[in-house]
Amino acid sequence: MSAPKKTITAAVLVIGDEILSGRTKDKNIGYIADFCTNVGIDLSEVRVVPDVEKEIVDAVNALRARYTYVFTTGGIGPTHDDITADSIAKAFGVEISENPEVIEMMLTRFKREDLNEARRRMARIPHGAQLVKNRVSTAPGFWIGNVIVMAGVPSIMQSMLDAVADKLETGAKMIIETIDAGGLPEGQYAAGLGEIAAAHAELSIGSYPSFTDGKFKNQIVVRGKEAGAVANGVAKVEALLHSLRADRTPI
Amino acid sequence: MSAPKKTITAAVLVIGDEILSGRTKDKNIGYIADFCTNVGIDLSEVRVVPDVEKEIVDAVNALRARYTYVFTTGGIGPTHDDITADSIAKAFGVEISENPEVIEMMLTRFKREDLNEARRRMARIPHGAQLVKNRVSTAPGFWIGNVIVMAGVPSIMQSMLDAVADKLETGAKMIIETIDAGGLPEGQYAAGLGEIAAAHAELSIGSYPSFTDGKFKNQIVVRGKEAGAVANGVAKVEALLHSLRADRTPI
Repeated sequence: MSAPKKTITAAVLVIGDEILSGRTKDKNIGYIADFCTNVGIDLSEVRVVPDVEKEIVDAVNALRARYTYVFTTGGIGPTHDDITADSIAKAFGVEISENPEVIEMMLTRFKREDLNEARRRMARIPHGAQLVKNRVSTAPGFWIGNVIVMAGVPSIMQSMLDAVADKLETGAKMIIETIDAGGLPEGQYAAGLGEIAAAHAELSIGSYPSFTDGKFKNQIVVRGKEAGAVANGVAKVEALLHSLRADRTPI
Repeated sequence: MSAPKKTITAAVLVIGDEILSGRTKDKNIGYIADFCTNVGIDLSEVRVVPDVEKEIVDAVNALRARYTYVFTTGGIGPTHDDITADSIAKAFGVEISENPEVIEMMLTRFKREDLNEARRRMARIPHGAQLVKNRVSTAPGFWIGNVIVMAGVPSIMQSMLDAVADKLETGAKMIIETIDAGGLPEGQYAAGLGEIAAAHAELSIGSYPSFTDGKFKNQIVVRGKEAGAVANGVAKVEALLHSLRADRTPI
């Protein structure tokens, strides 16, 4: 058996007034959460902040100190409210200027006379950052320190995430098993489930009620990084549910 | 004219491993964002944290110190991973115990012999909190200080938000006008839009590209709390777009 992989963590920082006003419904948090789970990164925190420099700087600095990676989305377009690149430069205490490579990339799409000041704004990259290209637009994101700066438009964000995926350090992949508790109410299995969880610190066990068509449906999720431990946890949860169902319909 | 209303702010704190793992896609942030905008509360920050006491306590204390209200979602069910109520009590430094009124409410649904330890867990309410009832379940949320603690299941959360809506202090309602920039690229209007934004600090002006069916579509949003100022901003943006469109198709 190979040595256990270390834990890799991440935070997502969503930047944009439009999410906080409700105008735009975020689709990136869930996508990045799935991505992290799939590659073995523990997404540990998410923040959404407005297009205000101090808020962005403070959040970036708080998060990059705590987690292996910080993924930001939003605020890298050409308009006055796109202040992410400048805020990231400020957070890192580095200069920012027009990046010649980005200008070249943009010239593959725009005529030189159409490359006005606003569009050139998208070529402003903090010094020391690596570009993160995408398939959709000629304006890149960038990667500086442990912070990966991406667009807010989901299709572009997803393409940027693809571009960095191979370069991220990843940990042991989380194995996730879902057990359907059927019509059994949470309140009946909560005590037994709590005992299983307490006895297995190596697992994360959760109970998730959902309410659809006037009925509650409960699912129990067992997560862990070691297949044997997860299988053992699942067996114990299934035995618990079986014993409770047997209680309900005594023969 | 009446005196201008003061600004009321809020934060949302989403509590739950299932959001961070991607297993559950959050639907509450966008709903609460719309709610706040509609009633005149400025939603200013969102955080998502795991089911870890210290993370919840730290986030609640950071947010309640900064904003008029904090809305939390998730972690108030009967299972071992539902630690929100205890974490909130800890954040406020108050005791927590079984609330007799909640037990009475639950007895309208459960027989006394079915009110086991796990279900009674949902009756644990921090001392000094007011109950926040809902139409869907007999287990309430609660309101303590400036923190409103709600369920994670969207239908229950929405019902709890209805229950507190009349009691929230609200500010001047944000007036939001959306202008379709049609096929005009952001890069063409960004400079002019930036000038309008800089000249009108009383407005928040944003540009929002979206990418659908292989085409960018841009919308410009003008937000403000005074109708005349918003109308003036909209007129200036429309004049800008008109002049740019005229530039493109010279007669």
